[in-house]
Amino acid sequence: MDFKTLKQIIAPGQTKIAMIVMDGLGGLPLEAGGKTELEAARTPHLDALAAKSSLGLIDPVAPGITPGSGPGHLGIFGYDPLEFEIGRGVLEALGIDFELGPNDVAARGNFCSVDEKGNLTDRRAGRIATELNQELTILLRTIKLPGAQIFVETVKDYRFVFVLRGKGLGDALTETDPQRVGVAPLPVKALNAQSRKTAKLANEFIARARKLLAQKKPANMIMLRGFAKRPAIPSFQDVYGTRAGAIAVYPMYRGVARTLGMDLLRVDGESVAAEFTTLEKYWNDYDFFYLHVKQTDSYGEDGNFEKKVGVIEEVDAQLPRLLALQPDVIIVGGDHSTPSLLKSHSWHPVPFLLYSKFCRADGRAEYGERACARGSLGRMRGREFMPIALANALRTNKFGA
Amino acid sequence: MDFKTLKQIIAPGQTKIAMIVMDGLGGLPLEAGGKTELEAARTPHLDALAAKSSLGLIDPVAPGITPGSGPGHLGIFGYDPLEFEIGRGVLEALGIDFELGPNDVAARGNFCSVDEKGNLTDRRAGRIATELNQELTILLRTIKLPGAQIFVETVKDYRFVFVLRGKGLGDALTETDPQRVGVAPLPVKALNAQSRKTAKLANEFIARARKLLAQKKPANMIMLRGFAKRPAIPSFQDVYGTRAGAIAVYPMYRGVARTLGMDLLRVDGESVAAEFTTLEKYWNDYDFFYLHVKQTDSYGEDGNFEKKVGVIEEVDAQLPRLLALQPDVIIVGGDHSTPSLLKSHSWHPVPFLLYSKFCRADGRAEYGERACARGSLGRMRGREFMPIALANALRTNKFGA
Repeated sequence: MDFKTLKQIIAPGQTKIAMIVMDGLGGLPLEAGGKTELEAARTPHLDALAAKSSLGLIDPVAPGITPGSGPGHLGIFGYDPLEFEIGRGVLEALGIDFELGPNDVAARGNFCSVDEKGNLTDRRAGRIATELNQELTILLRTIKLPGAQIFVETVKDYRFVFVLRGKGLGDALTETDPQRVGVAPLPVKALNAQSRKTAKLANEFIARARKLLAQKKPANMIMLRGFAKRPAIPSFQDVYGTRAGAIAVYPMYRGVARTLGMDLLRVDGESVAAEFTTLEKYWNDYDFFYLHVKQTDSYGEDGNFEKKVGVIEEVDAQLPRLLALQPDVIIVGGDHSTPSLLKSHSWHPVPFLLYSKFCRADGRAEYGERACARGSLGRMRGREFMPIALANALRTNKFGA
Repeated sequence: MDFKTLKQIIAPGQTKIAMIVMDGLGGLPLEAGGKTELEAARTPHLDALAAKSSLGLIDPVAPGITPGSGPGHLGIFGYDPLEFEIGRGVLEALGIDFELGPNDVAARGNFCSVDEKGNLTDRRAGRIATELNQELTILLRTIKLPGAQIFVETVKDYRFVFVLRGKGLGDALTETDPQRVGVAPLPVKALNAQSRKTAKLANEFIARARKLLAQKKPANMIMLRGFAKRPAIPSFQDVYGTRAGAIAVYPMYRGVARTLGMDLLRVDGESVAAEFTTLEKYWNDYDFFYLHVKQTDSYGEDGNFEKKVGVIEEVDAQLPRLLALQPDVIIVGGDHSTPSLLKSHSWHPVPFLLYSKFCRADGRAEYGERACARGSLGRMRGREFMPIALANALRTNKFGA
């Protein structure tokens, strides 16, 4: 349902919705006939909740499409990922709380290593420590160019954010990362006339950076990727009429939440338990909570089935803390699948659980891919899900007389 | 997902996909509570494959819509049948390997019988033999008209292909078959200005044909249907990046495959076994195989439940030959339903089975309508299916960052 129509039926409410997103939750059995990570995990609390819930499988973007993290999240938040696009640079900048304005073009920067000929020897400069990154960033900030303000901000390890602020800056630009070593980084090229000025500035910045870093080791060069301006996306609050708080540790997911206008809630530490502590702390201040768990995806990408199972069990162990808050609607799902077997994001639909007093429960005490395949939510597109969540929170009116 | 977006994520690959389409596969029980044709069939190989597969129900065009063979096939091949249309004339012409050019308008022709007043007595001229058809066709080829080249080609029995080649020929034309006997065939009418010249030529051809055939029995007249130009449809290879080979015996399905740019592979004979022999022979030359089985539909249309069951069992018996080739992805399904009970195409969604090493198997050794209704593929539109097949063949990349 389009946002305009949806807006007509959104009703104010005092109810609370909590959505737990385990990144890359969906999985595969390691052997034919075996169990997936979620099915293998010992999850007594999730299973008990499943018995009172409605289950289903969600294609965050579309059937057969392997979602990147940005499109995956947009989908389950009810935004059509084919209509709305958030560039990587924007996600990185917003993720570190950089206040991106309408005249800003942001890119994700990588420190890297090149040989005397300028050819790449390490695309991540040996994954340098954040402290070294901060030193180099201070150096890069000395670069001034006419026509735009420049911002350079450390993210983590070898990653930084590069922002150009000025008038007439387009973001249709190619990346400088050739995706392999042994060749030189590529120049930035403008893909339309409005982006020519940005390309020129970016190339000039890179040339100056190379000179400044020439004697440094191992990070003696930079690469820029994902040039993007902040897109015009209607805010979550505006679309759904809920005050939304985001609990996420990783910059990219904080960036997604920020792009949708959610408040980023402070987490002391990086553990799942710390995230649940934040949830408890801010429980009275918001109606919608997005709680993001990263490690399910990280271990999936590593091909570590057991550790992915472990993270799911860790979330299960924290679940009683959420239940104690008595949310009106509880959602547990993921932004895409990351089966350990494939060591990457995949196209498989994601298991989802929706609990409310009015959800028409399936009545089976099991939360897993196969249970969800039989669930009454059926198989649906990501963007079809949020209206169901809002309806279960009694936050919608009848459509038509 | 639109083709433009899809193109961004299609990856090259060495994997192979085999799609077996049993025409009109979906069925109905003859009596309430009974089994459908597919459920009644003894299919040990398909059932064993189902246990390792993901099952679902597909609406080739849209829920509740009874597909014609053209739209049904377009749908399961991932082309929106509401956007792309292939006229019957084009299907017939391409089906007999007639090389249709951009300035050609093709129609399907029927030899028929009329009485002395010119009223139809038999719309198919007693289903004359192909040999007589060939004789009459040679006669019709003597007709020459100014302004266009004329081609007349025998298809089979009472059917032939009529093609006008020339400049300024539109294809918005009415048909001459009144669909009942006792009345005269209708004149061809142009439905837009660009098609007036074509209408004039077609009517002139019909008038000359009537004179030439006047003394012939039983075929003393012709009718023309399905005027159409070859549509601009992106090729299968272009959309999916696979070399596709089509194994089909009936002209119409060869026509569909040809329209999508698939190579038509030679089948020695018309049996299901002969089609599987072709599959084996060309296995190394293509990445995507479309194998079409016609008789499931024919017997469905005849209302012959038992014989339709028999054809399904025949396909099951051949399945080990496909399995021996070790395809990366196996798809078994249909282009629409043809329940013997209804003796016609129907709107019922079609049972589909998708096997791959990564398909997240449902784990039930049963392939039938009810098993598919419970399957994890869920119920989906025809055009949503191909991306899943390609993803399972590891032929897609992630969408977005």
